[in-house]
Amino acid sequence: MEYNPQVSVDCVVFGFDGERLKVLLVERDTDTAGDDGTVYNNRKLPGSIIRQDEDLDSAAYRILEEYTGLTNIYLHQFQAFGKPQRSSAADEPWLEKIHRLKISRLITVAFIALIKLNNKVKSVSGKKTSVVWLNIEDCKNERLAFDHKEIIAAGLENIRRSLKFEPWLMFELLPKKFTMSQLRTLHDTIYQTRSDVRNFQKRVMAMEGISVLAETEVGVPHRAARYFTYTKRRK
Amino acid sequence: MEYNPQVSVDCVVFGFDGERLKVLLVERDTDTAGDDGTVYNNRKLPGSIIRQDEDLDSAAYRILEEYTGLTNIYLHQFQAFGKPQRSSAADEPWLEKIHRLKISRLITVAFIALIKLNNKVKSVSGKKTSVVWLNIEDCKNERLAFDHKEIIAAGLENIRRSLKFEPWLMFELLPKKFTMSQLRTLHDTIYQTRSDVRNFQKRVMAMEGISVLAETEVGVPHRAARYFTYTKRRK
Repeated sequence: MEYNPQVSVDCVVFGFDGERLKVLLVERDTDTAGDDGTVYNNRKLPGSIIRQDEDLDSAAYRILEEYTGLTNIYLHQFQAFGKPQRSSAADEPWLEKIHRLKISRLITVAFIALIKLNNKVKSVSGKKTSVVWLNIEDCKNERLAFDHKEIIAAGLENIRRSLKFEPWLMFELLPKKFTMSQLRTLHDTIYQTRSDVRNFQKRVMAMEGISVLAETEVGVPHRAARYFTYTKRRK
Repeated sequence: MEYNPQVSVDCVVFGFDGERLKVLLVERDTDTAGDDGTVYNNRKLPGSIIRQDEDLDSAAYRILEEYTGLTNIYLHQFQAFGKPQRSSAADEPWLEKIHRLKISRLITVAFIALIKLNNKVKSVSGKKTSVVWLNIEDCKNERLAFDHKEIIAAGLENIRRSLKFEPWLMFELLPKKFTMSQLRTLHDTIYQTRSDVRNFQKRVMAMEGISVLAETEVGVPHRAARYFTYTKRRK
């Protein structure tokens, strides 16, 4: 077979629903099953082979819009994955069927996107696939396509590092108004830690851009918590 | 023309000679000039199209060894560059001549390597190219191949960020024994700053893994400085 490498882009899209950190997965069309009846790993990261005249970033933005209907999402490239054997015997016939192209090797450039889960994240009509938000801790029990499990783990590690420089990234995952407890839960999920309530609040209040709103939660069974907001602009 | 993308690996190799931060460039063979007499940009980063069965990391290590003769170098992947027009009219005939292959597009994965310039950095015999160490501040006046100027700038920015997490990386650029003034010069070159001598030394001495040696410089016209060493292992 002729050596015909292709380059794709895959997006690790993180979302936080107030309690759990989640990652966006796409269900492969079931009608892409091979003639020999091979059962494919059914879930994968949203991604695509880059088009001939498309930049890597543009490809990632296009994919995000196709799968979530969202534009103006925070996105950054974090790592290229290019092991010669990153697609398994289950992935190859799927690739060929989808792309009508013998692909001898697929190198992917992975991006991280952060989404506010209260946005209406919809699947674009043209796409036959549907999307799934999986809890990050449940990834290890899933059989994902290609090396996507490894890409998700690397993405999470990258977010941990990025937050040290760019703590404002955290707020890309939160609604405009959030409670201190939501922020702490998000922080603790990302770092797999358990912060002290009082110290955490003290540290947050020392951050530039954080303000307390007069507004509090309504219709909650516990004492209504205050809302906070973050107004510092992205750098 | 059929759409035939290829993937390459390019290495931004930094070295420090005790006074200046430098980057390794490769001279293109002059006999690769096109039949129409096109003059190519003569210098480029050491790089190569990845081989069919080669991982990205392995390709980067191979290139480093080919151009410097060194193995066991600190190396990390930092960014993929894939603008559709990243090769210019001057680069394309060169690519075709070298690879005997019509390449409609070249996406490159860039790595950073850090080298102690006191190592004997040699060009491997098989290669007809020779290597040049360019002062980092002189890059802006060079006409480099492809988008290599942009890749070098991004590499320098990446090193600045990485050092905040992994300060030990700095010592990959220094000889085993170094003076405080060498370390400060290196730091100040990377961050384009001018550190206060006393504060800098105080901060360094607070680092884990730093020790003062009994040995001092010999044969210097000024007062002999003490040598320091760094013994903390890579994480």
